[in-house]
Formats: sequence, structure tokens, C-alpha cells
Amino acid sequence: MDFKIRPARKEDCKDVSRMIMDLAVFENVADQVKISHEELERDGFCQNPLFECLIAEVPEEHKSKDGFTVVGYALYFYTYSTWKGRSVYLEDLYVMPEFRGNGIGKGLLSKVAEVGKEKQCVRLNLSVLDWNTSAREFYAAKGAQNLTESEGWHSIRFDKLNMENLAKEAPKD
Amino acid sequence: MDFKIRPARKEDCKDVSRMIMDLAVFENVADQVKISHEELERDGFCQNPLFECLIAEVPEEHKSKDGFTVVGYALYFYTYSTWKGRSVYLEDLYVMPEFRGNGIGKGLLSKVAEVGKEKQCVRLNLSVLDWNTSAREFYAAKGAQNLTESEGWHSIRFDKLNMENLAKEAPKD
Repeated sequence: MDFKIRPARKEDCKDVSRMIMDLAVFENVADQVKISHEELERDGFCQNPLFECLIAEVPEEHKSKDGFTVVGYALYFYTYSTWKGRSVYLEDLYVMPEFRGNGIGKGLLSKVAEVGKEKQCVRLNLSVLDWNTSAREFYAAKGAQNLTESEGWHSIRFDKLNMENLAKEAPKD
Repeated sequence: MDFKIRPARKEDCKDVSRMIMDLAVFENVADQVKISHEELERDGFCQNPLFECLIAEVPEEHKSKDGFTVVGYALYFYTYSTWKGRSVYLEDLYVMPEFRGNGIGKGLLSKVAEVGKEKQCVRLNLSVLDWNTSAREFYAAKGAQNLTESEGWHSIRFDKLNMENLAKEAPKD
């Protein structure tokens, strides 16, 4: 199937927002999504954007059963390793189920790797859920290492309330 | 013990670089550190810095046995959650062993939380090694959640070579 990968434009945010929700439903956390397309427009298409995004688009004649031509996205940003330097972090990679098996996910991933290389990044990081076997196998087959298994890294989070409680205890200047 | 937390300045990068190496030695990965203080100066003190850093400083009369007054650091940057929005990520938190037990680590952490709150971040994320019990307990006691244990998130990495191999397979525009 023909598809094209290009940087997302502001007017793609409604499509991206729709697929963010699809992905959250798949991950069983739909109730966690608090971001609307307006917030994506504000955060991604400003002077200093908080993320970058690629989208996969199919021609009109291959549109989805619900009439969509934007059928996948990869959202990423830049991080920093104090051992190695600038890195790229892939926050989300998603392809609509009816378009899988056509190399679109692979295309999006390799485009993010290309951006990372162009920006002199030293690595590409991401997270997967342990029960998401197909995603784990997809990344492993392309040479990714599972750092939680090989080195024992665990992800830790302070949610907003706990972060704000911590902030209250910050030493005064 | 008296200590002061302040934003790192360019001239602190030698101290930060020294402590990055100390932390890597503790994590058994000293051979992985490829970043010098010159790179920290370039990456952190430019037009669009790749990270921000706080340092903890003690008065001259309490300097370390090797003569250092900069005795801890917290290095962080901003990330983005497609569920929640802007987040802050704490890459490194370190206090020199001879200065532990004085609230310096807690002070650095809560200062980063304060920065996150001021910048409208919705969460504070970080990673710990599973065998680093004292760090895990330190964060848990302050309300952090271990997402690897509670939700099954694993960290995945493409190193430079594998990222560049992927990039070679990117679809042409």
C-alpha cells in the first residue's frame, strides 16, 4: 500500500489527538488522556515546541473505513544523557489496526531514527509495556535493547500532586 | 550542615563532570561516560540548552577532603506526555558520599519539583536501577510510583549504531 510520511502540521492535531486516544484505549488507560487537539497545537506548534511529530498518510482512495487518510503517527522529543549527549525519545508510535502489516510502523520508526541521526543524537529511546509482546518483538528485531531486563532500569514517577508536595519543601533561596 | 542550592553556571561544568563520573562509577558503568565538561558547557549553556542543572554548594569551611565545595547536582530537562502534557525528567541526582545524610539530596529533588511546578509540568519522572535500594526507598518515601512494577513499563534503547542502521531504511520523501 502507498503511504507517505511527513512532518505533522498544526491542522493534523485533530488526527493525532484521535490516534492518541486510540493508543490509550489499547493500553487500557483511556481515562488518563487529558490532552486535547488544542493543547497539541499550542505545545507542538509554538516558538519552542515541546515535541515534534511525523504522520503517515495514505491516498484518498485508501482511506480508512471511517474516512481518515492520516493513519499513523510518531511523536518524539529530545533528551540528554550525561554519559553520551543528545538523544531522541520516541514517546508514541501508532498505526491504525486496519493499516498494519504494510511497513508503516517501520517507516515511521526509521524516519525518527533518521531525524535523530541528522540532529547528532547518540541514541533513540522509548518505553513499552511488558505485555505488549508484538511491540517488544518489533523493536528487538530492529536491534533495540531492553534496558529494564539487561541493566535493571525502572521508571519512576511523581504525579502532579506528589510533585507539588515536594515543591513545597524546597529550600528557600 | 549549611548548603545552598543554585542553578549551575558554565564554570560549574568541571564539577558537574567530575560528579557525573562519580555517579557512573557507583552504577558500574564508568566506561560508558563519553561526555566531557566542554560538551556540558556547549550543550547546557547555549541559546537552546539541552538540559538545566542545579548544584549544591557548601561553605569553604565545610569543603570536601579533596577541596571541593560543589558537592551535589541535579540535571534535568523537559519531556512531553501525550496524555498529560509537559513533564520534567530528572536525569541525574547525586550527592558526594561524605555529604549524605544532610538533606542535600532531598533539597535538590524538591527544588527540581519546584521548577517543574513553576513551568506548569504535570509530573516529574526519573529512572532508578533495581539494585539501588536506597534510591528506590528515597523516592518511594516521597510519594513516587514505580511504573515498571505497577504498570509494566520497560525502557528500550537503540544505540547509535542500531539507530543509524534504522535511519538507512527510512522511506525517501
